[in-house]
Amino acid sequence: MAETLPISPLAPKGGFPMLPKVEGVRFATVSAGVKYQGRSDVMLAELAPGTTIAGTFTRSKTRAAPVLDCQEKLGGASDAGAAIVVNSGNANAFTGIMGVTSVREITTAVADLLDIPEARVFTSSTGVIGEPLPHEKVLATLGDLKSGLSDRAIEDAAKAIMTTDTFPKGSMQTVEIDGAPVRIVGIAKGSGMIAPDMATMLVYIFTDAKIAFDALQPLVAGLCKGTFNAITVDSDTSTSDTLLVAATGASGIEVAGKGAFSAALFDVMDDLAKQVVRDGEGATKFVTVKVTGAVSDEDAKRCAMAIANSPLVKTAVAGEDPNWGRVVMAVGKSGAEADRDLLTIRFGDTLVAENGQIHPDYEEADAASHMKGENVSISADLGLGGGKFNAYTCDLTAQYIAINADYRS
Amino acid sequence: MAETLPISPLAPKGGFPMLPKVEGVRFATVSAGVKYQGRSDVMLAELAPGTTIAGTFTRSKTRAAPVLDCQEKLGGASDAGAAIVVNSGNANAFTGIMGVTSVREITTAVADLLDIPEARVFTSSTGVIGEPLPHEKVLATLGDLKSGLSDRAIEDAAKAIMTTDTFPKGSMQTVEIDGAPVRIVGIAKGSGMIAPDMATMLVYIFTDAKIAFDALQPLVAGLCKGTFNAITVDSDTSTSDTLLVAATGASGIEVAGKGAFSAALFDVMDDLAKQVVRDGEGATKFVTVKVTGAVSDEDAKRCAMAIANSPLVKTAVAGEDPNWGRVVMAVGKSGAEADRDLLTIRFGDTLVAENGQIHPDYEEADAASHMKGENVSISADLGLGGGKFNAYTCDLTAQYIAINADYRS
Repeated sequence: MAETLPISPLAPKGGFPMLPKVEGVRFATVSAGVKYQGRSDVMLAELAPGTTIAGTFTRSKTRAAPVLDCQEKLGGASDAGAAIVVNSGNANAFTGIMGVTSVREITTAVADLLDIPEARVFTSSTGVIGEPLPHEKVLATLGDLKSGLSDRAIEDAAKAIMTTDTFPKGSMQTVEIDGAPVRIVGIAKGSGMIAPDMATMLVYIFTDAKIAFDALQPLVAGLCKGTFNAITVDSDTSTSDTLLVAATGASGIEVAGKGAFSAALFDVMDDLAKQVVRDGEGATKFVTVKVTGAVSDEDAKRCAMAIANSPLVKTAVAGEDPNWGRVVMAVGKSGAEADRDLLTIRFGDTLVAENGQIHPDYEEADAASHMKGENVSISADLGLGGGKFNAYTCDLTAQYIAINADYRS
Repeated sequence: MAETLPISPLAPKGGFPMLPKVEGVRFATVSAGVKYQGRSDVMLAELAPGTTIAGTFTRSKTRAAPVLDCQEKLGGASDAGAAIVVNSGNANAFTGIMGVTSVREITTAVADLLDIPEARVFTSSTGVIGEPLPHEKVLATLGDLKSGLSDRAIEDAAKAIMTTDTFPKGSMQTVEIDGAPVRIVGIAKGSGMIAPDMATMLVYIFTDAKIAFDALQPLVAGLCKGTFNAITVDSDTSTSDTLLVAATGASGIEVAGKGAFSAALFDVMDDLAKQVVRDGEGATKFVTVKVTGAVSDEDAKRCAMAIANSPLVKTAVAGEDPNWGRVVMAVGKSGAEADRDLLTIRFGDTLVAENGQIHPDYEEADAASHMKGENVSISADLGLGGGKFNAYTCDLTAQYIAINADYRS
């Protein structure tokens, strides 16, 4: 299926961005034939000694074996080299002891290959859930992976981790700190089973900044809230969501958990998160849901996610119908504190309803014209307090059904 | 839209059931032209003096004006006659003070018409949210409604309250108590925006049993848990969900909140709830999700609803794909206590996975054959405790998108 889908109409118009080299990181990809044929499906990122690795992961109770392994390894000693190995086509999730064995086989072999501690090898797997991972196919390609390592192969890496994605996702920021450039580059995959809870499907970000784990980890977790934890395609949270941020320190520039570096890291995470939504299965519209006036930010998020996950709101967007009654419904069911008679709703800049009823000057043609665009904005002000949250989603189309009714066949 | 949809393939094969007359209730319907043309869209049920009326309602924070009015009136004196008035085509929801006025205009006029207290007139409205209800169209038909009252018109009543429903929904039970028959009949409407929270879209049940409000109300609320609160079509909770149970007492048989009457009332509620699912927008399969082994019934419900609401599970059912990995995903995201390695999953009678991995004897052909049927059963045992819950839903098809992308046009 993945190979035959047309590229999302919401894909960035310029294609994959030009990403600068980040000192201390090299990539390689191979075709191991885990499931897909005729395309690369394994990627290796080799990281220089001293690289700090932070991460966030799915909070699913049925987390996959590679996720549990990564979580254990986070925060360990960082003086040695490190590696990230990812395969697509099989998620190695719900595979019992076989899944644990597969992770161990791969991490041990990669540790030997690169002469680094096994505790510094992180893996992810993405694809079908519940089928044993044929890890021997991955092991057979390790020699080719090592000999193929290149500091220019990040676009290939972004392609190797795709499943139902229709385009590879990359982003970058260069930020000047103490007069010298610090680079941040990242890649991501994901288009279905997207309702991240701590992270999204698979995201890998690399920087040559120098930063300790104790500063990087809370920074990454904090920035997740408004980026990967603010997106949803279908309300379905994956067993495998993983975000790893690797800071090689090769620039020699020490950074803290705030300021220019934090802002640049946010920009990369924000861009990648929105690219995941832009590749939402069957998506034809990118939707920003802005909730303000809630009693707290948590309540605003609850409300924004209820709107963003409502099948009736999402099908109305697909039909270019400014059906604000369904927005009212979603606010009402969200569980957030709300008073029907204080509610204000806008589509784009058009004021639709105020104080619990339709605005006297509202012309449906204005809202309908906004809905015809590729970017749709739905705003709800609850009129109760200062809590706010922006969520990002896409519309729900017949193509989503078509993709998911026969993904495995 | 409602008029042109083909009848759901899951509709009861025998059509609308033969419902017995319930002494103390008469029905009438008219075409008021609220929104639909060429069909009836208002129904009146006249109830004899002394009728006890219990009910449950949506817990949405954006409840419609008629719902708020019904909630206030519940439990009042019941010696006088009573009435239920329902219009389709317009939900009178999010209509501010205009909505309150519309309710008052209708209830006052009906009270005058039937010479009963205004506090005994209950109304519901169902249809588009956010547009003012043209209540003068309803008022203009009251004379016709009164002259049309008949104790045989319940099927017409079931038809008048339909919106995107493709078939009218009715159910009955007759139960012998103290050697005499007590009758229970009910009608319901609903097919989208179905994820009831205390009740479903609109349900009216009538019985000639004699029962006090203080016994009937907790009975109805309790029976809701396993019936209307156990179904979901699209996870979207309506602003207007209303269930009213009217006991005329005309049989002279006093019943309590348990025993044979309770069992018969459950059967009627269960049947109507499942008929709502069977008319789920675009549905081609009726799905029973059984969760057992949870730490509590509440946790079992959380898990069952996560499976029943997952777009990825529902599209897999539409595609007749026994994609149990998606069931694992839904268990994991549900928030219910779960241990991946204790999980058992079945499609129909086929044991698919046990102890966190695929069963060695599992043959996909067996599960695939079950998925081809009209009734699909998905069972998950969490292996932790005695908590259990059954949820009922339908598949998610391209037809759901088609119906909802242009419902208003």
